[in-house]
Amino acid sequence: MKYADKVNDRLKKLLLVPKYKGLQKTAEAAAYSLNAGGKRLRPELCLEICRIYGGDTQKALDPACAIEMMHTFSLIHDDLPCMDDDDLRRGKPSCHKAFGETAALLAGDLLAIYPFEIIADCGFSAEQRIEMVESLSNAVGLYGMIGGQNADTLSRPETVGELVGTYTMKTAALIRASCEIGCICAGAETKAAEEYGENLGIAFQIVDDILDYTSDEKVLGKPVGSDKEKGKATVFSLCGLEGAKDLAREYTAKALEAAAKLPDNAYITELTTKMLTRIN
Amino acid sequence: MKYADKVNDRLKKLLLVPKYKGLQKTAEAAAYSLNAGGKRLRPELCLEICRIYGGDTQKALDPACAIEMMHTFSLIHDDLPCMDDDDLRRGKPSCHKAFGETAALLAGDLLAIYPFEIIADCGFSAEQRIEMVESLSNAVGLYGMIGGQNADTLSRPETVGELVGTYTMKTAALIRASCEIGCICAGAETKAAEEYGENLGIAFQIVDDILDYTSDEKVLGKPVGSDKEKGKATVFSLCGLEGAKDLAREYTAKALEAAAKLPDNAYITELTTKMLTRIN
Repeated sequence: MKYADKVNDRLKKLLLVPKYKGLQKTAEAAAYSLNAGGKRLRPELCLEICRIYGGDTQKALDPACAIEMMHTFSLIHDDLPCMDDDDLRRGKPSCHKAFGETAALLAGDLLAIYPFEIIADCGFSAEQRIEMVESLSNAVGLYGMIGGQNADTLSRPETVGELVGTYTMKTAALIRASCEIGCICAGAETKAAEEYGENLGIAFQIVDDILDYTSDEKVLGKPVGSDKEKGKATVFSLCGLEGAKDLAREYTAKALEAAAKLPDNAYITELTTKMLTRIN
Repeated sequence: MKYADKVNDRLKKLLLVPKYKGLQKTAEAAAYSLNAGGKRLRPELCLEICRIYGGDTQKALDPACAIEMMHTFSLIHDDLPCMDDDDLRRGKPSCHKAFGETAALLAGDLLAIYPFEIIADCGFSAEQRIEMVESLSNAVGLYGMIGGQNADTLSRPETVGELVGTYTMKTAALIRASCEIGCICAGAETKAAEEYGENLGIAFQIVDDILDYTSDEKVLGKPVGSDKEKGKATVFSLCGLEGAKDLAREYTAKALEAAAKLPDNAYITELTTKMLTRIN
C-alpha cells in the first residue's frame, strides 16, 4: 500500500465523529477538510525519510498523520473570511462554506491541538515524542507557519528576500519539520533532512504562486489569480513569470542538492522533481 | 511574591514582540490579551498544587504560564464575531476589536500552539513533559474545551445534565488539567487534584452564568445579560436564579470535599470558597 493510502486510512480512524450530538459539527467539519483529497506531501516526506534512515514506517504513521492535521488546520483558518476569504479548496467548498464559520474556526482549532495528543500517545520513547512536540510547535509558532501568515496577510513583503523569508515560515517550516520528525522516528541525525525540507518547501510555495497565475481553474481547484485580486505580494508580482520560474528552479536545485546527501534517495529525488512540474 | 505576580512577569518575558515588522501584529495582539489582567486562576492552581505536593514552584512557572496562554487562546477565539461576538473582555476592547479579526485569529492560533513549545522546552524530565502535553491537549481537544465550545454554540444543551456536561468540557477540563499538571510537576499522583479541579471548574462556570444575569456591567467588565441575548442555554435559563445558586453550592461543596483530601490545603480551600462569592 502506498504511503498516501495508509495515511488516508489512518486519518479516518484517528478522527471519528462522536455519537454525542453536542460534539459532532466540529468533528464533521474537521473530517471534511481532512478527507478532502490533499496530496499528503508532508506525511509522505515524514514516512519516506523515516524509512531511508531505517525507521519503522508503521510506527511513524501517527506522527505523520498529526503533521497532516496541522497542515489542514492552517488551510481551514487561511480560507476564513478574515484571512484569504476563499470559497473553494481542492475544487470543493472550503470548510466555512460547507459548515459555517463557527464550525470551521473550531475545526481548525481542533486540528491544531489534536496533533499533540496523537504524538503524546504514539509508540515512541518519551524523549522522541517530546522532540516531535518541540519540532512541530516550533514549525507552527511565531517563527513558523503562524508568523508566516502574519507576514503574508498583515504586512506586505517588499523584496524577494522578504518574500522568501515569509515562505520559509509560512510553508517551508512545516515541510522541514515533516522531514525532521521522520528522522526523529528513525533515531537519526536531522540536519541533512531539514536542509532538504526547507528548500523543497520554499520551491513548493513559489510553484504554488506561479500556478495561482497561470493555471486553469478546473485544474487548480480554486479561482485562478486570487492572490492578485487580494493585492498580495507574490513572487510573480515581485519578479514576473520568468523570474518566478528561475527562483523555483533555484530552490528546487538546492533541494535536490540536499536530497543527494540523504541515503537511498531515489524516491525523494523523484518527488522533488515532480514538485516543480506539478499542475495542481 | 504572589503567584499571580510571578506569572505576570514570566508571561511578559515568554511572549516578546519580535523586531521584524512582518511578525509583530500577531504577537502584539496575543500579548495584549495575555496581559489584560486575568485572575490567573489556572496557573495559580497549578503552582499551589505543585507546592502542596512538595514540587519546585519556580520550575513549574513555565508550564503554569503555558496553561494561561491556552486559556487566553480560548477567550480570543470565543470573542470573535463568528463565536460569541463580544466587544468587551475584562472591561477592555476584545482582541479583534483592538487589532482586527485577522490578527485576533492568528493571536489565538499562536496561543494554542506556543504552550506546547514552552512545555517541550521546560526543565522537567521528558516523561513529565510528555505527560503535560498529553494532559493539556486532552483538556483542550474534542472531549475538552473545543468540544465544549461546540456543545455551547452549535448545539443547545436541553437539560441541566447536558449543561453540566458542556461546562465540564468547556471550562472544567482545563482547570482540571491545571491541577493535574501541578501534580506532574511535583511527581505526585494526580487523582485527588483532578477531582478537585473538575468540580471547582463546574462551580466556576455556573457562578459565571449567574454573574452574567445579576451583575453590574462595570463590575463584570462586559455587557450583562449577553448570554440571554444570544439565546444561549445557561444554568439560569434552565433552572432559574435560585436553582442556579443551588447548583453552584452543590459543585462548590463537591470541590471542597475533594480539596479536603489534598495535603496542606488551607489556601486551596480559601480560594475555592472565594470562587463562589466572587463578583467578577
